[in-house]
Amino acid sequence: MYQVDLNSDLGEGFGLYTIGMDKEIIALISSANIGCGWHGGDPMVMDATVKECKDKNVAVGAHPGFPDLLGFGRRNMLVTPAEAKAYAKYQLGALQAFAKSHRVRLQHFKPHGALYNMAAVDPKLAAALAEAVFEVDPEIIFLGLANSCMISAARECGLVVASEAFADRAYNADGTLVNRSQNGALIHDISLCISRVTRMVKENKVKAITGEDIDLKADSICVHGDNIQAVGFIKAIREAFDAENISVKKLQDFL
Amino acid sequence: MYQVDLNSDLGEGFGLYTIGMDKEIIALISSANIGCGWHGGDPMVMDATVKECKDKNVAVGAHPGFPDLLGFGRRNMLVTPAEAKAYAKYQLGALQAFAKSHRVRLQHFKPHGALYNMAAVDPKLAAALAEAVFEVDPEIIFLGLANSCMISAARECGLVVASEAFADRAYNADGTLVNRSQNGALIHDISLCISRVTRMVKENKVKAITGEDIDLKADSICVHGDNIQAVGFIKAIREAFDAENISVKKLQDFL
Amino acid sequence: MYQVDLNSDLGEGFGLYTIGMDKEIIALISSANIGCGWHGGDPMVMDATVKECKDKNVAVGAHPGFPDLLGFGRRNMLVTPAEAKAYAKYQLGALQAFAKSHRVRLQHFKPHGALYNMAAVDPKLAAALAEAVFEVDPEIIFLGLANSCMISAARECGLVVASEAFADRAYNADGTLVNRSQNGALIHDISLCISRVTRMVKENKVKAITGEDIDLKADSICVHGDNIQAVGFIKAIREAFDAENISVKKLQDFL
Amino acid sequence: MYQVDLNSDLGEGFGLYTIGMDKEIIALISSANIGCGWHGGDPMVMDATVKECKDKNVAVGAHPGFPDLLGFGRRNMLVTPAEAKAYAKYQLGALQAFAKSHRVRLQHFKPHGALYNMAAVDPKLAAALAEAVFEVDPEIIFLGLANSCMISAARECGLVVASEAFADRAYNADGTLVNRSQNGALIHDISLCISRVTRMVKENKVKAITGEDIDLKADSICVHGDNIQAVGFIKAIREAFDAENISVKKLQDFL
Repeated sequence: MYQVDLNSDLGEGFGLYTIGMDKEIIALISSANIGCGWHGGDPMVMDATVKECKDKNVAVGAHPGFPDLLGFGRRNMLVTPAEAKAYAKYQLGALQAFAKSHRVRLQHFKPHGALYNMAAVDPKLAAALAEAVFEVDPEIIFLGLANSCMISAARECGLVVASEAFADRAYNADGTLVNRSQNGALIHDISLCISRVTRMVKENKVKAITGEDIDLKADSICVHGDNIQAVGFIKAIREAFDAENISVKKLQDFL
Repeated sequence: MYQVDLNSDLGEGFGLYTIGMDKEIIALISSANIGCGWHGGDPMVMDATVKECKDKNVAVGAHPGFPDLLGFGRRNMLVTPAEAKAYAKYQLGALQAFAKSHRVRLQHFKPHGALYNMAAVDPKLAAALAEAVFEVDPEIIFLGLANSCMISAARECGLVVASEAFADRAYNADGTLVNRSQNGALIHDISLCISRVTRMVKENKVKAITGEDIDLKADSICVHGDNIQAVGFIKAIREAFDAENISVKKLQDFL
Repeated sequence: MYQVDLNSDLGEGFGLYTIGMDKEIIALISSANIGCGWHGGDPMVMDATVKECKDKNVAVGAHPGFPDLLGFGRRNMLVTPAEAKAYAKYQLGALQAFAKSHRVRLQHFKPHGALYNMAAVDPKLAAALAEAVFEVDPEIIFLGLANSCMISAARECGLVVASEAFADRAYNADGTLVNRSQNGALIHDISLCISRVTRMVKENKVKAITGEDIDLKADSICVHGDNIQAVGFIKAIREAFDAENISVKKLQDFL
Repeated sequence: MYQVDLNSDLGEGFGLYTIGMDKEIIALISSANIGCGWHGGDPMVMDATVKECKDKNVAVGAHPGFPDLLGFGRRNMLVTPAEAKAYAKYQLGALQAFAKSHRVRLQHFKPHGALYNMAAVDPKLAAALAEAVFEVDPEIIFLGLANSCMISAARECGLVVASEAFADRAYNADGTLVNRSQNGALIHDISLCISRVTRMVKENKVKAITGEDIDLKADSICVHGDNIQAVGFIKAIREAFDAENISVKKLQDFL
């Protein structure tokens, strides 16, 4: 029996603005990355999302981003590691208040958008985020890009780490993600996506864009909840996992 | 021997903007109300302020305000009790992350500015704030205006409460503060201010603006840190307290 | 031949967040109230909305709100008249930049949400907003609640004014809107709504909630663009207007 | 007789927060770059600053920055040229509202902080900003770093351009600024600073960090208003200019 976590970004509405199909997604995943009010999310949304996750037995994690609501946290900002560390603590703490209120514990921490992408290639930024988590609560799992310096930084810090893989993204030979601007970076064939993640979970391997097999550990697969197609895709993954004896589990239940 | 807490609002800078004489004030008080990033304060400031308070043996408390940085949280906003509750949790949690990082515990919670003033006269809003604190951490002391519905709401919730009094404000016969817009609302004579707070602490009494003595329990005296005069005023209060056998202590040390 | 303007709030998305059925609504109205970035709207949205309005021959107006994106500008904030005046100028000017870029002129100014509701009953606030418009551009039409102090304040200031009426709201005998919290405040019967607005336009009369006829001038009817029902409602109004010889025109074409 | 403009960043307070010695600086400069509410500045501050500049016969210009109040607009943000263009228009328009109210015209446009630094080396970003200005008001002067692509982009757009030089910064042989992180980037000797700017104005030359003379046109010298030393430095520059027959004038009076 194999096991893997399915994670998705949720709770990213703000005030009257809604985004994503949270209700449908929560029914299909094991771990939720919840917006913490900076790139998306607000206190009312955070409260409701933690409650919904608890009700559906989905683990909750903090999903902090840059102070850039206008850009949804997707634009690189040249913050210092010290700033990133403080920003991560602030947002992590804010979400913890709702977790405590609902008597659930925060399972994990996963940076959002540009903060995630920058920390994946900047060891100092990665270390700052890992330290933020460790200093606030060393029991929290750090969920980061497989093979990236986030994983090594968090491990060095003493945190339990979880490697994240993407079903619909191509990989370079060195295990990094192919840049979205490059041809072939996104994989549109759903059955190919599914066979790739299945292999990641069972063999810890994936074929790189250059043709060779590379090592890729996938503790958690990131799925998106933007639209109805996305929901269908998650359902297809889950069916394939059932057929392949892959059990979908929260990170905290097998790490 | 009598005892009382001295509290002040601190950590209200934002980015490059500084405000208040935090360093000078921290040396003179026993409890700090730390801005939580909404009306003032930011993660870097919060981190530095918690550290400074710890170093100087000053207790730290959350000082959440309205989402109105432009108005410094001093303008009434018609939020619902549910919104206020969520906003309070968010900011309380955010500050807790820094308290945990520095291995200190949050002693108290005191709402800021317009949120404080509105909660002092709106039992539903007061209850919402008290519940927010209780649900996140029932050990936190609720610091609110003496004689107001904040005190009763927090007590009813099961929280330890602390009554706050003001040295430089006149009181109505019913124990409420005289509105700032009214003549005589502010007391400018420093020695009168000092004799009034001394009596509040020793006798739990103060003379109302209408002349009669009223009951006023003062667990904590609020002092301001805006300018050099304010610092001098705090020093004068402390000297008077020394002479009157009033010991300045953190709330957690005598409540 | 009668004439009336149909106005709607548009351009209130923010970054990745979308709200309202702008495209469908623009095809049906004569005047657009465009969010100016504070309660909703952002520079990219403002630019695109002005362009779309120009393409569809819809007049554009500024729709400034409180600095409360989290509350979508719907929560009362106790700003001073001087603050409101400055906030109105800022947002008006910001939208003018896009109007100039697209070689259209700003037709009107209509405050949003809580700012509108507060200015409708606060003569000082209404005067502050009217002065803001007059000082920036005295040619801009002030669109405000019929019979309210916004209308008198703007007229006194020297501005051209337009009285706004609501199809789906009940009116008190004094011409003010029945508070939403009161029974009967909202009129759900579409054909009743339509017959009421038709009468407002042709006879300048409407039946108050207390039964008597009152005077109500309707230069512009406010319609909403929240959902597909709202779009259907606007179509029904337009058909009724066609049948009744009421021509839908921009304010600037008949005031 | 020689002539040059002295410009400084002003009006960058926010709500209760103040920053810079605006009053002292306005008495000494010819052109003010006024914060537009994103990196600093707010509507009340903008209004007061425009008024003060008008009273002291100082020309006003828009000083737009990134949507990063927390970082005072000093942190690079990877916005697209289209976003930068819309952001520039928004802020320019907002300031124009106050200029119109006070019956002064906006003289110039100078991007702030990281937006300035990025546009100095990114032709697409520079072109986007120049187009923003041109489309809103082609009469506005574009004030940018001498020798940078901001100058060429604005000129190509059809705008009048003004080249800005810095008294206290070293220059590379190609006319660009020596990076602040490099040794010798900042010149601390006041009399050296003064002799350098005097030569820039009279001979359009300055000695590069590598020793050779380079061409440097200086239509405007940027001075800072952070502290009392800065004010003294501006006074020293003005005295030196008087002695050297260099007249301090607004850009609009000699370009």
